[in-house]
Amino acid sequence: MSLRIGFIGLGIMGSHMARHIYEAGFPVTVWNRTASKMEQAKQWGAHTAHSPKEVAEQSDLVITIVGDTPDVREVVTGENGVLAGANPGMIYIDMSTISPEAAKELAVVAKEQGVDMLDAPVTGGDVGAKNGTLSIMVGGEEDVFLKAKPILETMSRSLVHVGPNGAGQTVKACNQILCGVHIAAVTEAMAFAAKAGVDLEKMLAVTTSGSGSSWALENYGPRILKGDLNPGFSIRFQQKDLRIVLQEAEKMELPLLVTAVVNQLLRSQQAHGGNELGTQSFIQVIEQLANQSITPKS
Amino acid sequence: MSLRIGFIGLGIMGSHMARHIYEAGFPVTVWNRTASKMEQAKQWGAHTAHSPKEVAEQSDLVITIVGDTPDVREVVTGENGVLAGANPGMIYIDMSTISPEAAKELAVVAKEQGVDMLDAPVTGGDVGAKNGTLSIMVGGEEDVFLKAKPILETMSRSLVHVGPNGAGQTVKACNQILCGVHIAAVTEAMAFAAKAGVDLEKMLAVTTSGSGSSWALENYGPRILKGDLNPGFSIRFQQKDLRIVLQEAEKMELPLLVTAVVNQLLRSQQAHGGNELGTQSFIQVIEQLANQSITPKS
Repeated sequence: MSLRIGFIGLGIMGSHMARHIYEAGFPVTVWNRTASKMEQAKQWGAHTAHSPKEVAEQSDLVITIVGDTPDVREVVTGENGVLAGANPGMIYIDMSTISPEAAKELAVVAKEQGVDMLDAPVTGGDVGAKNGTLSIMVGGEEDVFLKAKPILETMSRSLVHVGPNGAGQTVKACNQILCGVHIAAVTEAMAFAAKAGVDLEKMLAVTTSGSGSSWALENYGPRILKGDLNPGFSIRFQQKDLRIVLQEAEKMELPLLVTAVVNQLLRSQQAHGGNELGTQSFIQVIEQLANQSITPKS
Repeated sequence: MSLRIGFIGLGIMGSHMARHIYEAGFPVTVWNRTASKMEQAKQWGAHTAHSPKEVAEQSDLVITIVGDTPDVREVVTGENGVLAGANPGMIYIDMSTISPEAAKELAVVAKEQGVDMLDAPVTGGDVGAKNGTLSIMVGGEEDVFLKAKPILETMSRSLVHVGPNGAGQTVKACNQILCGVHIAAVTEAMAFAAKAGVDLEKMLAVTTSGSGSSWALENYGPRILKGDLNPGFSIRFQQKDLRIVLQEAEKMELPLLVTAVVNQLLRSQQAHGGNELGTQSFIQVIEQLANQSITPKS
């Protein structure tokens, strides 16, 4: 018989991910804090539950993808949380981006109740979630990973077991250091070119094809050029992710100067009301600092 | 009749570049401050001269690729410099990485003597120079670019006319912002993963295939992992290039915070004797700050 899947968190990412699992032939029971999202899921065939606890009671494997560390704790260890309803032998997978330390702690708590946990954060954004082409980096025990693999494969193009509990979140944190610092590099380079009067389209064409290239340059450079600051990934989440990185780094006595500066500049963009804009709106931080416009006005 | 080419600066890059021109069928006259390099060039067929002036006297098109801005000024406008020997109608191409402002000024000085100048800095490193696969970004007048094109094509895979005099250097500066900041991102991410005990090979595999990817990550990540800090591009030149960027940015009243921090950290690596190591030795800056080793000891 097919594994019964529970899915908690039907945001932009989660709603697509849950549906991919269902369409691969697994029964899916969902819960979401905002109930209207559950109605949409009902239409494609999901069962709904009244709490994370009830989801767990009806599932062999439960996935959460919610916001920040406190949201995950609440949904998992709260009075009506996943662990309150979990049967021994259940697998629990958190796909949110939270701190590696919190992921390790939750795995210990889950284990005490006979539940095996994996941390499995993703990259690839809403487009990756929609098309089932996410990259998933998984931390946890090998045999648990192998059991969960058929489920995670329904939504991913790249699925890698990177180490023990917490390792998935650590690798995701590394990815977020790279993305965050790259967008700063892209915007400083574009501001420099714009001020010097160079054609930005030619600048992007040349640098994208050489040693200065990055995923961020290729994907966000053209959007900045068009003045499109809509979120693929929001300033809010990028700032949160670097905050997690810096908190972990502090525990490890590891100074990360460039990441710290970028994090502070992201905070400046938040202070200017850019929380829900895409990370490419980092260009506005430079505009603010330089007191001049660089992007085309919409 | 074939254009007679003059080539000044037979360093790691220049010696290969001059030879590609010669092998494409153009007569080449060379000069280099260190005379022994000229002897090597003689062996593959170059003529040699006693000064940049003498090179210019015998050439229709002269290329320089020397160190920093003062070196270029000396070789071009000095008593025995290129312009002292140039015939009206000669084309002069500087392929060094210098400041966009200096490139513009030199173009004006050259024009007064009937010489058309292009700034044509390159990326692709010693490997690109050796294989004739450099990327060249050219600033100057369109018709001068078209005359020089067959020569520049002998050593490049990508050749783009990006704008008027100075524009080539501006785009190169943008490339150097990107490269410099990227190597900082790579090393901070790797240090984070190493401290957290995650397998660095897996971390690199996952991040290289996703939204955190960059040329720097793909090329320098594995070298850092092996403890190979040999220069593809040296700390000395990276620091010089960001110094140029920041000097230009100051003139343009453009604050570039992340670039500035990276530049200061490069200076720290210079202070620790890392001047001639590759830019991937930025990992040692993090090790120094964190007072612990991350790369394998050789």
